[in-house]
Amino acid sequence: MQNLSEQCLSIIQKRPKNSHKGTFGRTVLVGGNAQFGGAIMMSAEACVNAGSGLTTVITDPNNHQALHARMPEVMTADWNDNELCDSVLASADVILIGPGLGEDEKSQELLTYIFQKQTENQLLVIDGSAITLFAKNDEELPHPEQTIFTPHQMEWQRLSGIKIADQTEEINQAVQEKLEATIVLKSHHTEIYSEQEDFLNPLGNPGMATGGTGDTLAGIIAGFLAQFASSVEVINAAVYLHSYIADQIYYDNYIVLPTKISQALPYWMKQFEK
Amino acid sequence: MQNLSEQCLSIIQKRPKNSHKGTFGRTVLVGGNAQFGGAIMMSAEACVNAGSGLTTVITDPNNHQALHARMPEVMTADWNDNELCDSVLASADVILIGPGLGEDEKSQELLTYIFQKQTENQLLVIDGSAITLFAKNDEELPHPEQTIFTPHQMEWQRLSGIKIADQTEEINQAVQEKLEATIVLKSHHTEIYSEQEDFLNPLGNPGMATGGTGDTLAGIIAGFLAQFASSVEVINAAVYLHSYIADQIYYDNYIVLPTKISQALPYWMKQFEK
Amino acid sequence: MQNLSEQCLSIIQKRPKNSHKGTFGRTVLVGGNAQFGGAIMMSAEACVNAGSGLTTVITDPNNHQALHARMPEVMTADWNDNELCDSVLASADVILIGPGLGEDEKSQELLTYIFQKQTENQLLVIDGSAITLFAKNDEELPHPEQTIFTPHQMEWQRLSGIKIADQTEEINQAVQEKLEATIVLKSHHTEIYSEQEDFLNPLGNPGMATGGTGDTLAGIIAGFLAQFASSVEVINAAVYLHSYIADQIYYDNYIVLPTKISQALPYWMKQFEK
Amino acid sequence: MQNLSEQCLSIIQKRPKNSHKGTFGRTVLVGGNAQFGGAIMMSAEACVNAGSGLTTVITDPNNHQALHARMPEVMTADWNDNELCDSVLASADVILIGPGLGEDEKSQELLTYIFQKQTENQLLVIDGSAITLFAKNDEELPHPEQTIFTPHQMEWQRLSGIKIADQTEEINQAVQEKLEATIVLKSHHTEIYSEQEDFLNPLGNPGMATGGTGDTLAGIIAGFLAQFASSVEVINAAVYLHSYIADQIYYDNYIVLPTKISQALPYWMKQFEK
Repeated sequence: MQNLSEQCLSIIQKRPKNSHKGTFGRTVLVGGNAQFGGAIMMSAEACVNAGSGLTTVITDPNNHQALHARMPEVMTADWNDNELCDSVLASADVILIGPGLGEDEKSQELLTYIFQKQTENQLLVIDGSAITLFAKNDEELPHPEQTIFTPHQMEWQRLSGIKIADQTEEINQAVQEKLEATIVLKSHHTEIYSEQEDFLNPLGNPGMATGGTGDTLAGIIAGFLAQFASSVEVINAAVYLHSYIADQIYYDNYIVLPTKISQALPYWMKQFEK
Repeated sequence: MQNLSEQCLSIIQKRPKNSHKGTFGRTVLVGGNAQFGGAIMMSAEACVNAGSGLTTVITDPNNHQALHARMPEVMTADWNDNELCDSVLASADVILIGPGLGEDEKSQELLTYIFQKQTENQLLVIDGSAITLFAKNDEELPHPEQTIFTPHQMEWQRLSGIKIADQTEEINQAVQEKLEATIVLKSHHTEIYSEQEDFLNPLGNPGMATGGTGDTLAGIIAGFLAQFASSVEVINAAVYLHSYIADQIYYDNYIVLPTKISQALPYWMKQFEK
Repeated sequence: MQNLSEQCLSIIQKRPKNSHKGTFGRTVLVGGNAQFGGAIMMSAEACVNAGSGLTTVITDPNNHQALHARMPEVMTADWNDNELCDSVLASADVILIGPGLGEDEKSQELLTYIFQKQTENQLLVIDGSAITLFAKNDEELPHPEQTIFTPHQMEWQRLSGIKIADQTEEINQAVQEKLEATIVLKSHHTEIYSEQEDFLNPLGNPGMATGGTGDTLAGIIAGFLAQFASSVEVINAAVYLHSYIADQIYYDNYIVLPTKISQALPYWMKQFEK
Repeated sequence: MQNLSEQCLSIIQKRPKNSHKGTFGRTVLVGGNAQFGGAIMMSAEACVNAGSGLTTVITDPNNHQALHARMPEVMTADWNDNELCDSVLASADVILIGPGLGEDEKSQELLTYIFQKQTENQLLVIDGSAITLFAKNDEELPHPEQTIFTPHQMEWQRLSGIKIADQTEEINQAVQEKLEATIVLKSHHTEIYSEQEDFLNPLGNPGMATGGTGDTLAGIIAGFLAQFASSVEVINAAVYLHSYIADQIYYDNYIVLPTKISQALPYWMKQFEK
């Protein structure tokens, strides 16, 4: 397993001068029920600050006002409005489903709906409760090679069937090969499994052990994929930068609020711009 | 086509000592449906920070709380309340329609309503989906010389019939003359077409290629027109300052959040105050 | 007419060590209909930052969420809930009515209600549309000596019957004597008329000519009266400090956002603490 | 009575490297009716910034949007949804009830419900109107040794029957022994009564005498208990740090906004990290 280094941030290239919103991709985030609305807001805040050209959140209408109050840069769609959701999804480059999605019937319905809609050209990031839902049912991934799972260890246990204590590199890698999807296995040092070699993130700190850290990472991954070429390198960079910024914040703060990571993204991306 | 320079900011004159809210104009912004509420919020945030004396937003009632949470300085009117909207519009110096307006029946109804209400003394800025709606139909501008369109290149294609690849200065200028309205053609270097000579904005950067940058520019233009004399010079200054501030932010940030531009307006206007 | 000077801020005394919320008074603010909710939010933000011990806003329920999102330090009461409003008012030291109140039936009903409830021990600040409503009708002030009006020049014309051009010190003073209330006549240099000598505020700047500046002043006056002894000196200090801070902000900013004045209150009050 | 000193902050240990959200506890806050929603928001803001691993607020649904707009890191549960509340409570390490809870039937119903649900492994902090409700009725504490009351002097009078003038250390201690719960008696110098010796907080300042200071302290206590071992030392540290930070803010500010204390927690906890 190879350690990630600052080198992986070289994908953050100087933006081409003649560009517009479309150049940097359209990201659609799906999640946020009445109880967990904050999760999808944190993903959206990360995604915009990570540089996605356009960001739309498909969510419970109860979350629209708070989303706009925090981040008017984000567009919203009522997840009960099928026609609107169809049209929003049709133009997506990257779809993220899961943060604050919940695990009830509506959540399952939305996951199935996204599986039906995902096209060959769209990447799909599956996070949080969407992983648990997927693990429970026997649905097939419509496009495994274009799919990224971002489980924490317990979610990975549900998805892979491997108990936390048994989650070694070799076993994890074997399950990845069966799933064909990329796996971002979050723990105090996150691991990335894909068709390529396996990567280990040496950064991160215990101040990040607070609700919302994972939602924020999922938003950065989605924003990076929308904006840069689709590749494991881009996912590596998202994982590394998320922890890198958190370590900077942790230097002076006992707790790393996830929204602080998002707010610092434009500054740090500039520092690493090639 | 003449390059804009810092010179154009000389319209930002020292404010007269004996002044009140009315001195700096009343701006009314129309837009923001349930999905795109953030767009009109960003315009309003720009407009207030640009110095409009009083700013009112006519919008879907779902957006009122988020607007107030971000910017209590802005007044709101429910766009279903005709009597209220009539009275708000009657006192406007400048009307901006379009940010987040959408393209459905309600949107068209509002555009037609604004065309009916606009008086000889009121400037009208037409942005975003209002441009697309106008291009689709065969309505006439009630007061072309008092109208400013702010299309991006695709919207300009819809409005002018000129394909993006063919949008040369000469052809653009010819359409402007037919329309009689002022055109702010947004691209990585914005162009301004009017009765006067054509202007090119040499500033701007690819960090601005994110949702909300155009909504913010429209708000600054409206706020400047409300506050300073109506002229192409004032529009030039709004375009130039918007990019100037964005370039300052871009110096240290990979992405230029539109709301950061608005928040920096009072500071930079002071620096250029004559 | 005597010029106010920094001297008037000497009422900002070091707080007694053994104190609690009750020591610094209970302020109740009444205003904010569906359109003008932002006004009462700005008053509340000013009032809390000015040091009122407890601040409650009686307003349209549509404004509660945005109020809390900006300032959880403020309590809210639905202005349709009479029982709750009765109990909130009963414990008030200072009542402010007017910011964003509107001028319809409900507004008038609330003004009449406040007149009925005001006790001999409660100060009443009447601002904004409440002044216009009062001027229109023939109600009597329940406790004129405990009442402060904060009109701008046009509202003063409505209230006093004196045209703006004729608003000289002598004539203003004569009307004050008839009304028996204290008058804070807002203009580019605010004047204060009371039983005592007349005062002129030499501070202030044209960057303050934006919506919300008056709502903020009203909130500071209410917060100061709740916290310090009731006197013209306290009103003078509120007027002076409001402009003093605005002048500090204006030094670096072309526009003085009212909420920036409020946010700077704790700092500047400390600088002037005796 | 022993004076607390900086020494008590030594419970803020360096976090273990291999940790996750669960390591730092699950806190559930119950409060915030339609009028007093801000109180529970301030507790939640304190709790997250104090380092609770996961924070959920059981509150009136009217408060959800404002909570998320301020702090998406917090999860919400509608207090009318029994099934959801049951499941949220089942996983709690610490429960805080009281901030903004009110004193009506619904409030009493919720307090009784929490008493029924509290398990042997869960700590319970009782604050604000929940203290008043408890004092009024004759309910028994389900687990007195796991209960912490945080009354101000008037609430302590209601709870203990001791008039404020008679609240001496000896008498307070006697009542504590009867109650068996820990008492955090808030005044300008807070006192802590428990099975152990009594403690006096020498810090604090009159700038803290504003609405929300107590709600914030309750949130810090809950967050500390969730994260560190349950002990009087941990409560001491929460009380001391709350005042320590407030004193830092007061140095430059006449009024100490409670939310400013919360926002400064991560920084100051880092400074004292052992």
